Amino acid sequence: MPLRLNMRETGFEQKFNALLAMKREVSEDVDSAARTIIEDVIARGDAALIDLSQKFDRVDLAKMGLRVGAADIKAAIAACDADALAALKLAHARIVAFHQRQKPSDLRFTDAEGVELGWRWSAIEAVGLYVPGGTASYPSSVLMNAAPAKVAGVPRIVMVVPAPGGVINPLVLAAADLAGVDEVYRVGGAQAVAALAYGTATIAPVAKIVGPGNAFVAAAKRRVFGKVGIDMIAGPSEVLVLADKSANAAWIAADLLAQAEHDTAAQSLLITDDKDLADDVVHAVEHQLALLPRKDIAGASWRDFGAIILCDRLGDAIALADRIAPEHLEIMAEDAEALATRVRNAGAIFLGGHTPEAIGDYVGGSNHVLPTARSARFSSGLGVLDFMKRTSILKCTSESLRVLGPAAIALGKAEGLDAHARSVAIRLNLG
Amino acid sequence: MPLRLNMRETGFEQKFNALLAMKREVSEDVDSAARTIIEDVIARGDAALIDLSQKFDRVDLAKMGLRVGAADIKAAIAACDADALAALKLAHARIVAFHQRQKPSDLRFTDAEGVELGWRWSAIEAVGLYVPGGTASYPSSVLMNAAPAKVAGVPRIVMVVPAPGGVINPLVLAAADLAGVDEVYRVGGAQAVAALAYGTATIAPVAKIVGPGNAFVAAAKRRVFGKVGIDMIAGPSEVLVLADKSANAAWIAADLLAQAEHDTAAQSLLITDDKDLADDVVHAVEHQLALLPRKDIAGASWRDFGAIILCDRLGDAIALADRIAPEHLEIMAEDAEALATRVRNAGAIFLGGHTPEAIGDYVGGSNHVLPTARSARFSSGLGVLDFMKRTSILKCTSESLRVLGPAAIALGKAEGLDAHARSVAIRLNLG
Repeated sequence: MPLRLNMRETGFEQKFNALLAMKREVSEDVDSAARTIIEDVIARGDAALIDLSQKFDRVDLAKMGLRVGAADIKAAIAACDADALAALKLAHARIVAFHQRQKPSDLRFTDAEGVELGWRWSAIEAVGLYVPGGTASYPSSVLMNAAPAKVAGVPRIVMVVPAPGGVINPLVLAAADLAGVDEVYRVGGAQAVAALAYGTATIAPVAKIVGPGNAFVAAAKRRVFGKVGIDMIAGPSEVLVLADKSANAAWIAADLLAQAEHDTAAQSLLITDDKDLADDVVHAVEHQLALLPRKDIAGASWRDFGAIILCDRLGDAIALADRIAPEHLEIMAEDAEALATRVRNAGAIFLGGHTPEAIGDYVGGSNHVLPTARSARFSSGLGVLDFMKRTSILKCTSESLRVLGPAAIALGKAEGLDAHARSVAIRLNLG
Repeated sequence: MPLRLNMRETGFEQKFNALLAMKREVSEDVDSAARTIIEDVIARGDAALIDLSQKFDRVDLAKMGLRVGAADIKAAIAACDADALAALKLAHARIVAFHQRQKPSDLRFTDAEGVELGWRWSAIEAVGLYVPGGTASYPSSVLMNAAPAKVAGVPRIVMVVPAPGGVINPLVLAAADLAGVDEVYRVGGAQAVAALAYGTATIAPVAKIVGPGNAFVAAAKRRVFGKVGIDMIAGPSEVLVLADKSANAAWIAADLLAQAEHDTAAQSLLITDDKDLADDVVHAVEHQLALLPRKDIAGASWRDFGAIILCDRLGDAIALADRIAPEHLEIMAEDAEALATRVRNAGAIFLGGHTPEAIGDYVGGSNHVLPTARSARFSSGLGVLDFMKRTSILKCTSESLRVLGPAAIALGKAEGLDAHARSVAIRLNLG
C-alpha cells in the first residue's frame, strides 16, 4: 500500500517533508573506481577500452573492433520489427518538428549611445551520447538525445553503447541511424565517458557528453565536467498526477504504474480532492499490477515510494506540486489549463485525460529527458539549447567609447584594476 | 618574455597543443575540507556559520548578526565615491537593457494531428549569489550576476559575501541594492554555499547558486550540485586578440595587460599576421607594464602564460581561435566582422579597435561572466536563461491520441515497458 496523506490532518507538513526528503536511490560511492578507470583510459587509450570491455562486458573488442560499422548498422535495421521501426520513424519526425521550434535567434542592434550589441548562437562542435546497455537500452532515448543535437546543427554526434556479450539492441542502432548519429562505438561505463572526454586513437574527443547511465557513468560524468560539458545527472523517474472527480481512476492507475515499472526507485504520486477517486485508484492499481510483466518492479516502487495526498481543493495542491517539482505532471481536472498556469516547477505537464505520460515518452514530440529528483526547481528538459552556445558581441565606435569610457574608467579604478581603466583611457587620449 | 610561435615553423602543432594543455591553475584538493564544512552546516546551521566565520574571517557574527541590515546597506551607499556610484548606475541600466532582450518566449501550437504542444518558461524560485571578499570583491560582478536574475523574474535573490574583519566593500553592497538583491548575508566560503543549498534557521535555502569563488567555494558548489543548480566553475580569465597591421600596438598591449592584471594565472594571447605589430606589442607591453600598480601580477601572467602567434593570414587563425575557445576574443582587423562570423568558440567577441574588453567588463551591457578554460566550446556566458527553466506542455484529444497511440504502444512493447503501452491502450479500449 502506498502512503496516504491528507492536507487537513495534523502533522501533514512533517509527513509531506518526509516524503520530499525520502531517499529513493542509494548513491553508490563509485567515485574512486570511476577515477581509476578514467586515468587508465587517459594513459592507455584504446588498450584500456579493450581491457575494460573484456572485464565488464565480456566482449573482445580487439577482435570485434571498437567502432560499429555501417554494415553492422544496416544488419541491425534489417533485424528490427517493422512496426517498431515505423513507430520509431514517426517518433523521430515528431521530435524533430517540435525541436526545430526551439532554435534560438541571433540578435544585433545599435543602442542610443551608438554601441552595437548582440549575440550569435552556434552549435557545439562535437557531442557524445551515452546509451546504456542491457534492459535500460532504450531506442526512444537515442532519439531524444540525438535529434535535438542534430537540429542544433552539431556537426559530429558520437554514440557510445556497451555491448554486453557483443550484443547491442538493434532498435538502438536503428534509432542512431535515423537520428543522424555520425559514429557509434561499442563501449560503455566510465571508460566510454573517459574516451569521449579525453579521446583515444580511435575515438576523437567531444566537447559535451549527454545521456543517462549507471552510477559509474554518472560519477565519470561528474569527474570530466569542466573538461567537457555534461547534461544533468539523471535520477529515478517520477510522476505526479493532479486529479479531480472528473478523472478516470483506471487511466490514472495505468499512468502511475507506467512510471513505477521503470525502476523500484521510481515514484508515482497522486494528489486529489476526491476521496472516492483516491480509493478507486488504489483498487485499480492493485488490479492492473497483477497483469504486468514487470509487476515486481512496479509493485515495489508503488509500495515503497507511491503516495496519495488528499486535499480540499486542487488549487491548494499547486504549492505542493511546486515543492515536489515533479519530472512529469499530469493534470486531469476540469480546470486543468488554469491549474497548469499556476505551476512553477515541473519538467513537463500533460494536460487532460487523453494525454498519458507515455505519449510524451515516445511520440508526442517534446523531449522525454526531463529534470528528476526535484531538479525541475532549477533546470529544464533537454532541448536544442543544450547543444548550442551563445557568443556575445560588442562593438564600440570611437564616439560611443567616448560616451561610455569614463564610467568604465571609474569602475576599473574603484575595483583596483588600473590596467582595465588604462585600456579605455589610452583610446581616449586620457592615458 | 611571452612565448613566440609561428604557424609556419616545424613543430608548431606540438607547441600549440602544449600551449592549450598548459595548466594555469593548481587545482587545490580541498574537496574533503569542503565536505566537512558542508556537513557541519547541515548539522548545526547558524551555529556552524558563526564558528566558521570566526575561524576563517575573524568576525563575530553572533554579535554582528548574519544578515546585513537595511541600515548597513544605506550607510555603505553613503560611503561610496559619487563617481563610482554614478558609473555603477549607468552600468546597471545598460546591463538590464541588454538582458531584457534575452527573455525567452513561451510557445503553444496545435499540429496537424491535433496535438497541442509547447512550453512555458518560468523564473527559478530563489537564487543565491556568491560574492568573494577581499580584493576580488567586485561590484561589477554583483550587477552581472544579480541583474539577469532580476530580469528573469526571480522572486528571491540572496547574496552571500564574506566580511573579513567585519568589512564588506561598500560598493558591493551598493551594487546589490541597485540590482534588487533581496537578502544579504555576511558569510562566505564553503559554509555560505552549504547554507544556500541546505538552509539554516536564518538563511532559507535557494534552488540555484551562482557566482565565482575560491577553491573551497568551487569544491562546495560541485558537492551541492544536484541538490541545487549551479553555474559554471570559473577558472582564470583569458583574452585572445586577433589583429592585423591596421591595429594599434599600444591599445593591444593595454588590453593584454588588462587581462593579465586579474591574476598571475590569467592568459593574454595575440595572433597576428604582421611581425612588426607583434614586435611593437611586445615593446608596448614592457613599457606599459612598468606603469601599473599591479605590475607584479600582470608581469607574471604575461611572462608565464602570454603568447604571440604569427600566422600568414588571419583567416588561418580562426581554427586556432576555435581550439583556444577564448573567454574574450578581440578582433582588430580590417575585416573584423567577416572573421568574427567564422568563429565558433568564444565567450564574447569585441569588434574593432574601439572596443577594449574592459568596456564589456563594466558598461557595455552584455554579461562579463563568461566561459573560461576552453569551456566556450560547450557553454555560454551568464544570461537570463540561467535563471529560468522551461516546462514542456503536451495535450492530446481523444482523436489525436487515437492517431499517435498505436506507435506509442509499439515502442513501449519494443522497450519491454508494457505498463507504458497499457497506459495508452486502456484509453483506446485496446487494453
